Amino acid sequence: MKPIQVGLLGIGTVGSGTFNVLRRNQEEIRRRAGRGIEIHSVFARSIERARKVVGDDVKVVTDANEIISNPEIDIVIELIGGYEIAKTLVMQAIAAGKHVVTANKALLAVHGTEIFAAAREKGVMVAFEAAVAGGIPIIKALREGLTANRIEWIAGIINGTTNFILSEMRAKGLDFAVVLKEAQRLGYAEADPTFDIEGVDAAHKVAIVSAIAFGVPVQFEKAYVEGITKLQAADISYAEQLGYRLKLLGITRRRDTGIELRVHPTLVPSKRLIANVEGAMNAVLVHADAVGTSLYYGKGAGSEPTASAVVADLVDVTRLHTADPHHRVPHLAFQHDSLATTPILPIEEVVTSFYLRLQVADQAGVLARITGILAEKGISIDALLQRPQDADEGQSKTDVIIMTHETVEGRMNEAIALMQALPTVLAPIVRIRKEELN
Amino acid sequence: MKPIQVGLLGIGTVGSGTFNVLRRNQEEIRRRAGRGIEIHSVFARSIERARKVVGDDVKVVTDANEIISNPEIDIVIELIGGYEIAKTLVMQAIAAGKHVVTANKALLAVHGTEIFAAAREKGVMVAFEAAVAGGIPIIKALREGLTANRIEWIAGIINGTTNFILSEMRAKGLDFAVVLKEAQRLGYAEADPTFDIEGVDAAHKVAIVSAIAFGVPVQFEKAYVEGITKLQAADISYAEQLGYRLKLLGITRRRDTGIELRVHPTLVPSKRLIANVEGAMNAVLVHADAVGTSLYYGKGAGSEPTASAVVADLVDVTRLHTADPHHRVPHLAFQHDSLATTPILPIEEVVTSFYLRLQVADQAGVLARITGILAEKGISIDALLQRPQDADEGQSKTDVIIMTHETVEGRMNEAIALMQALPTVLAPIVRIRKEELN
Repeated sequence: MKPIQVGLLGIGTVGSGTFNVLRRNQEEIRRRAGRGIEIHSVFARSIERARKVVGDDVKVVTDANEIISNPEIDIVIELIGGYEIAKTLVMQAIAAGKHVVTANKALLAVHGTEIFAAAREKGVMVAFEAAVAGGIPIIKALREGLTANRIEWIAGIINGTTNFILSEMRAKGLDFAVVLKEAQRLGYAEADPTFDIEGVDAAHKVAIVSAIAFGVPVQFEKAYVEGITKLQAADISYAEQLGYRLKLLGITRRRDTGIELRVHPTLVPSKRLIANVEGAMNAVLVHADAVGTSLYYGKGAGSEPTASAVVADLVDVTRLHTADPHHRVPHLAFQHDSLATTPILPIEEVVTSFYLRLQVADQAGVLARITGILAEKGISIDALLQRPQDADEGQSKTDVIIMTHETVEGRMNEAIALMQALPTVLAPIVRIRKEELN
Repeated sequence: MKPIQVGLLGIGTVGSGTFNVLRRNQEEIRRRAGRGIEIHSVFARSIERARKVVGDDVKVVTDANEIISNPEIDIVIELIGGYEIAKTLVMQAIAAGKHVVTANKALLAVHGTEIFAAAREKGVMVAFEAAVAGGIPIIKALREGLTANRIEWIAGIINGTTNFILSEMRAKGLDFAVVLKEAQRLGYAEADPTFDIEGVDAAHKVAIVSAIAFGVPVQFEKAYVEGITKLQAADISYAEQLGYRLKLLGITRRRDTGIELRVHPTLVPSKRLIANVEGAMNAVLVHADAVGTSLYYGKGAGSEPTASAVVADLVDVTRLHTADPHHRVPHLAFQHDSLATTPILPIEEVVTSFYLRLQVADQAGVLARITGILAEKGISIDALLQRPQDADEGQSKTDVIIMTHETVEGRMNEAIALMQALPTVLAPIVRIRKEELN
């Protein structure tokens, strides 16, 4: 049988990885897919730069239309990134009846509903394993491996840059700004790291994962997003003493009243496997009713790890595009006419536990006031740590660290406002959410 | 569309779990599969016992033929276990054109080649996610998620009973026999635990995994199998001091000369995630050329975790049985006409590093002799620990612990024979294989 023909849009980091993996493992891939998979042509802005990757044997075009409108091409891979051009090209490819493989989480998080609807209309597949957690086949696990289950929650380290930064902050006791510079120097953070460090990239991914887990539309715009830029080394150290590690987690959880969808720094018990995922590695923890807790760990970014997911999608399309489109694996795991309208909960209605650090005047009655406010708001205390007075400062102040049990965030906001107003609370209260993940 | 009809052979632990999960999550499963999935009838030896699980609404039969020959039934689930009856029924179901889902690793490890050939002939699917690592979708990850890769090696904790026993031995400093009794009392080990503790169950599973990873036939009969019954608490403790944990691993690795396929107690660096998988949990570590190292963790046994995999297979069949059978996901990940004849290496040709414990006379020159033998065989030493003399015994003897670098096992056998023959070596040498897994 004639090899399946692929058009590649974009030949940057992931595009090059895809090209190289397909070429290096072509024989192994053919043995698995039952057909060869060939790059028919590559769209690049610079022919010269593309030639450096693909050599002289592959057609390089500077007009993406030559790929999208080419009847010889079966599958289009979109690796351009961003929202604008990528969206236009993906929609055109679908309209032309091509199957699409993309690694573009931003695109799917924002325009997923429209793209999947168009694909359904044309009976083509849109595959996007590479969009979440790079080389870890987490989309496949959720969409196909755990279909028996009512999924309860998912918590993932799904941004390698921030996990690298947090790992370094802990290992070296350094503050955020210092480590960010190091990460940029080492290539773990981009020159403009905003999307990573502010949690936006993780929010794109968790919005996709949430849809697949709970059978709802992708709703990035409703996610609560908080990055790691304000974190201090002191809190990482205090948490460590209490048996917790700090991770930037993407979390989505089913509640009776709706779905939680949030990205924020989170304290996790040090003994959990996910707390021990270090450096730029990713891991996704899934809790579901039949299987219990399972974890998926691996490289979440990089040229070949991401290419691994892109090429796996190519093989999937090659193997499965002949299946009845009405029953074939749905893009978002659930049949499009079975999506639920379960609301995404605002952050004030999220239920979680908290780490609080209060800098207080070291005088009688302060602790009674603080614990009194928490009690009044019905928030119970799990652990309390009072630091010895800070002698260097020559002032009478100290750090009080409080770990609470679970509470509704709105209630914690009220408690924090009351505590912050106390004259004996001398600095802005630090608040970090905490999850037991068991 | 009319629900897909399933015949269930066996209503024991996993059968009950399957029935309960399908019923409890039927709505969620229908939303994913695009069709209902219904248990049409159940084969059981005791109607009364089956009724206790399935109630009065489902047909229960005591003749499996009523299921296999029923034209209304689309998929047969085999959960009887064992080789004989299970094989006959699976072959008959295939002959009758039914798709088959099974959790029976023993059956596939021994008769897989024949079963898959028959299924291919009839164009039906045989799905077996539940056969390896219970609820962890590791078959799917290897067969579909990592298809871009040349897989290099796989190392898995794929037997919960032995991992529970080893975890307890370490935590409590107890020897094997004591912990086995406790495991039996708690239900983590069966009354006849031979298949688990001797490594046979893990070998069934790793033989299946090896075939899927490397595109070779399932070759359980060529696996090297060593259980945990002879392990002593002392070695767990010594290894711990050197930064290693003891796990029963199923390992399969590609070498230039062939494929390693082995199950044995293995020391793993304590800092690896897989070293921290405790109790009855399973985890599989995969190393592949594009994606690097990835890990899959979860419950490897039990009623509903295993049912999670069985039902996922039902959904897969429901979604994908209409795909062209010649390109549909192959049973063993590789197209049947593309299987390789790469030989399975005998254990003497396996390359690994070793932990050795020698009880030696505490006199001058002993260590020189031992290290001299290792040097002579070209085996280099990574770490050496000499214990202080054991005063209680009132004798002049001591433990020497040696960690080696990698070597061919046959050469280590020669070295051990030479060391064992020394008059100053006072007891049988303890040898445990060690893997860095990085």
